[in-house]
Amino acid sequence: MKALFIILDGVGDRLWEGKTPLIAANKKNIDYLCENGINGVLHTIDRGIIPGSDTSHLALFGYDPYRYYRGRGTFEALGAGLSLEKGDIAFRVNLGTVDNNLVIQDRRAGRDAYRLKELLESIDGMEIDSIKISARHTTEHRGVVILKGEGLTNKITDIDPHKTGAKVLRCKPLEKKADFTASVVNKLVDKAYKIFSEHKINKEREKKGKLPANYLLLRGAGIYEKIRSFEERYNIKGCCIAGGALYKGVARYIGMDIIDVKGATGTVNTDLKAKAKAVFDNFDSYDFIFVHIKGTDSASHDGDFDLKKKMIERIDSKFISEIKNLDCIKLLTGDHSTPVRLARHSSDPVPLLFWSKDVRKDNVKNFNEVSCAEGGLGHLKGKDLMRIILDYMNKGEMFGE
Amino acid sequence: MKALFIILDGVGDRLWEGKTPLIAANKKNIDYLCENGINGVLHTIDRGIIPGSDTSHLALFGYDPYRYYRGRGTFEALGAGLSLEKGDIAFRVNLGTVDNNLVIQDRRAGRDAYRLKELLESIDGMEIDSIKISARHTTEHRGVVILKGEGLTNKITDIDPHKTGAKVLRCKPLEKKADFTASVVNKLVDKAYKIFSEHKINKEREKKGKLPANYLLLRGAGIYEKIRSFEERYNIKGCCIAGGALYKGVARYIGMDIIDVKGATGTVNTDLKAKAKAVFDNFDSYDFIFVHIKGTDSASHDGDFDLKKKMIERIDSKFISEIKNLDCIKLLTGDHSTPVRLARHSSDPVPLLFWSKDVRKDNVKNFNEVSCAEGGLGHLKGKDLMRIILDYMNKGEMFGE
Repeated sequence: MKALFIILDGVGDRLWEGKTPLIAANKKNIDYLCENGINGVLHTIDRGIIPGSDTSHLALFGYDPYRYYRGRGTFEALGAGLSLEKGDIAFRVNLGTVDNNLVIQDRRAGRDAYRLKELLESIDGMEIDSIKISARHTTEHRGVVILKGEGLTNKITDIDPHKTGAKVLRCKPLEKKADFTASVVNKLVDKAYKIFSEHKINKEREKKGKLPANYLLLRGAGIYEKIRSFEERYNIKGCCIAGGALYKGVARYIGMDIIDVKGATGTVNTDLKAKAKAVFDNFDSYDFIFVHIKGTDSASHDGDFDLKKKMIERIDSKFISEIKNLDCIKLLTGDHSTPVRLARHSSDPVPLLFWSKDVRKDNVKNFNEVSCAEGGLGHLKGKDLMRIILDYMNKGEMFGE
Repeated sequence: MKALFIILDGVGDRLWEGKTPLIAANKKNIDYLCENGINGVLHTIDRGIIPGSDTSHLALFGYDPYRYYRGRGTFEALGAGLSLEKGDIAFRVNLGTVDNNLVIQDRRAGRDAYRLKELLESIDGMEIDSIKISARHTTEHRGVVILKGEGLTNKITDIDPHKTGAKVLRCKPLEKKADFTASVVNKLVDKAYKIFSEHKINKEREKKGKLPANYLLLRGAGIYEKIRSFEERYNIKGCCIAGGALYKGVARYIGMDIIDVKGATGTVNTDLKAKAKAVFDNFDSYDFIFVHIKGTDSASHDGDFDLKKKMIERIDSKFISEIKNLDCIKLLTGDHSTPVRLARHSSDPVPLLFWSKDVRKDNVKNFNEVSCAEGGLGHLKGKDLMRIILDYMNKGEMFGE
């Protein structure tokens, strides 16, 4: 039996005027699976742990994040299609705007991508103390920077202070042997600042009334190492259907194939019908299909209850409606809660539904945070989920005889 | 307060046409205890782990199988009444029938036990490279083989390929220092094949139209070591009432007394009234009585829903009816699920009922996989059960003051 594993990012919420977006949403297809399946609530990492999107996805695929997580930059780089080798350090980067005192005017250079790709290319290939620098533009004001060479570590602090009006930070070592890496990073941002400040693209941007993009706001240093793949561990072939680079990156990290879907943008406007079609198109080729839908989380971070509710309704009518009768195990859950009122991740568990024709149907009829807590699966941890799925796929291994 | 701990082997199931054998069965005595007790579902080893019968029983008695499990052969040998010393290697063995190319014709020599006891005795006492071999017949085509001597390990593969039509396997080392053991095992099966092939008992079997039993299908190598007993750990005296050798073996391994019950066969035809009588007969002598009933699992492995349902009904009317008013704590659960449709163990938790006159009665009224998941005990792990029982027996220890 194949498995379809659907993650609605940040779908879990807390009550707002007595409801959550899941409680408020009209979602008959999801509720059909819920009523005919077994339900529970999932602590993706552990009770009370506020999961990041990276660590939670590792846990959902059965990779203990306390063992396998080495910083987000790695996933962003892999998700952008870059190749990494053991020991490479990868950062996420914003091209930001600072004044002469290195105080941040805008962390996103006005969210204007004009010629930023070329600007980043101007530092690509640079070498600092025998460390080779690669820089690649991804979306809008965002990119990825990779450091390649001997003796690097990701135990260093961010350059990005994560807020406007603050001075950019110096990279600091978090362990003794990180001195060298921190020094390379500081030299890199200094050189880049000099190059960007004088760059003709920025002169041109300013002439057009745009903010200059003059600073490398590096963050989320990750160190790469090859790990035992999903297929080696579980003896099943998995693929990933996602818009966001991070989710593709985690999937690539564990060796899943990435299915490129036109119109899958990782935003609230993503083409859900195209994602459903991709499930059908790849159904014969894979045992395990991971579908990630980001919009629920974006609406939560915007603090928009109604947008989150509507996104759930759109997922129900455009995506779940299409796949609900597929002959396979179906799981629907989130990677973490993102309560709209908080506009940040929280440790509240996410509802989980598990449909298979022989599963022990419980009495839960509406897929939401409150009723799923009464379901037959009880409270689960993310790390336990893959084993349960594998058993239902007939791919489990008995311990003992 | 004494405790009666009843295991219905493989009793848990998945839905088949909306029901499980427990849901379908008429079992008023079990449901009486359920309605007047507290209920839950038990993951004998952990969520998503498919338990073997050996590992699950260790866990149920509070012995972490990841620490204490050293292969099934040990339990089979102990259950057959054999004595083991530290470092002894014990195997389960089928006497099987192979052709001239060592391809298995029948893994059970036609399930015909005719003179197999004497046949096995013909290799008992053999010595190979200073390792002493013991062989003992147990039931039907089954027996136990023990290797005694210096430098042995159980990190080796089976001889038994576990299917008809396959060639027998060579024993292979699973670790460097297992080379010697694997070589002794291979020499043993070769010698036994030669002896059995030419043995007059096999000539006689063939003359009578029976299959010759010419091969030692060794499997489940276990290595023995003495562990801290049930009584030393918990300060209570326990006994075991079971038909199957494995269950008696686990009980002996942890130092319980084994009560021999005439008619307790470990099959669907076991004498349940005799087992109930054994509970009464031993009630004064022990604090903790472990009763194992195998038939539910056998019916599951046969894929027979109706037989499993009837076995549950027979357990209800012949056994539970007798013990339900005994003045003691009563626990009823399984060691694992064996869904009839799968005819194999699964990781689905097993329902658990816990009766004591002062327990926090919940609202569960029917003892089955679905309703017990809504019970007051929630989801438990096997390793936690003994501590709860001990507290209700007034034998628990406070941590702190």
